[in-house]
Amino acid sequence: MIPSITAFERSPDGGRGLARDMRVRWALEEVGQAYTMRLLSFKAMKEPEHLALQPFGQIPTYQEGDLALFESGAIVLHIAERHAGLLPHDMNARARAIAWIFAALTTVEPPIVEREMAIYFERSKSWYAERLPILEDRIRKRLGELSRRLGDADWLDGDFSAGDLQMISVLLRLKGTPLLEECPNLCAYVVRGETRPAYRRAFEAQLADFTAAAGR
Amino acid sequence: MIPSITAFERSPDGGRGLARDMRVRWALEEVGQAYTMRLLSFKAMKEPEHLALQPFGQIPTYQEGDLALFESGAIVLHIAERHAGLLPHDMNARARAIAWIFAALTTVEPPIVEREMAIYFERSKSWYAERLPILEDRIRKRLGELSRRLGDADWLDGDFSAGDLQMISVLLRLKGTPLLEECPNLCAYVVRGETRPAYRRAFEAQLADFTAAAGR
Repeated sequence: MIPSITAFERSPDGGRGLARDMRVRWALEEVGQAYTMRLLSFKAMKEPEHLALQPFGQIPTYQEGDLALFESGAIVLHIAERHAGLLPHDMNARARAIAWIFAALTTVEPPIVEREMAIYFERSKSWYAERLPILEDRIRKRLGELSRRLGDADWLDGDFSAGDLQMISVLLRLKGTPLLEECPNLCAYVVRGETRPAYRRAFEAQLADFTAAAGR
Repeated sequence: MIPSITAFERSPDGGRGLARDMRVRWALEEVGQAYTMRLLSFKAMKEPEHLALQPFGQIPTYQEGDLALFESGAIVLHIAERHAGLLPHDMNARARAIAWIFAALTTVEPPIVEREMAIYFERSKSWYAERLPILEDRIRKRLGELSRRLGDADWLDGDFSAGDLQMISVLLRLKGTPLLEECPNLCAYVVRGETRPAYRRAFEAQLADFTAAAGR
């Protein structure tokens, strides 16, 4: 059964691979599972057909036979549970890898998203210049804690896992910013993720979809 | 093996049961698993001993034999995977319940936390009055989408699950606000959660811990 994924027809990131379908593509490439894509316009994302699949009108979704899932965190975990390669066999190590998924999505990512929201939506507001450094300090605190925990290890807890996949995907949102560059071990960690063959294949696939849509 | 949980010695919510240990207590009560608590001062949460358990210096943590976990999302999922009662047996329904955990924590909760951060930390700022309604509209959008999906069902997808436990815990942060009261079916959903015997037992236990610490 080949799963089908939804993604933006034209990702607002301009093909940089930051939309959340990239995390699902990466997971599928890591485990060697083929997939098909269904690209949606912003209009189609708000229509009843898509809302039946994704109540919040977002991408990605995942359909596989009778199963329809939403939330990239849940989709990546589902893939990791049903294929070898993204979660350890040892049950305690497996639970810890899942803890890193939640740490990435619920502790590290929210302040990074807040900074992006401010940059997109509050740039012309009177408070932007005063508030941005407050947001950046919130990110800096989390990155410092993460950097101390990672130390000089390659991955967060033993072998590469779905926890690393999510954490690196979150950190990629900060690629090229001083915030990330202040933590050299996190920069190297991100590069280790980006240079995995599965990441490269997923990245090229999303870029090809973006480029094809932009050419139409 | 009796698991041990950490929580705030004096919760900043004044005993309203909004700290994230409450979600773990509730899950343990639902499955009938006894537990012990270890209450931490804010100072102890930033010390090396706790940071070894929880790299971001937060509560709760979960220790059970050789296993040490952090992130309430991961802890509740761990409990739900190892005991009956919080996840369906059918594998597709189980994956969908896990999707609701992620929806609660990564789609619905972040804008609610942002509003709380603004109320706590930006109340004296010049921009507070203009920015608060923007934050409330972000919450209103998510609650409207959730309300439409829930409709007149009792729970989000079939029987009560760990997905409902997390979603109701998130919505409780808005209890008594007009934001929640604009969605009568979500108010009723929250009440259905709060009146479960397991929720009541967990709530009373956290309140007893808070009251004991406040009396010292």
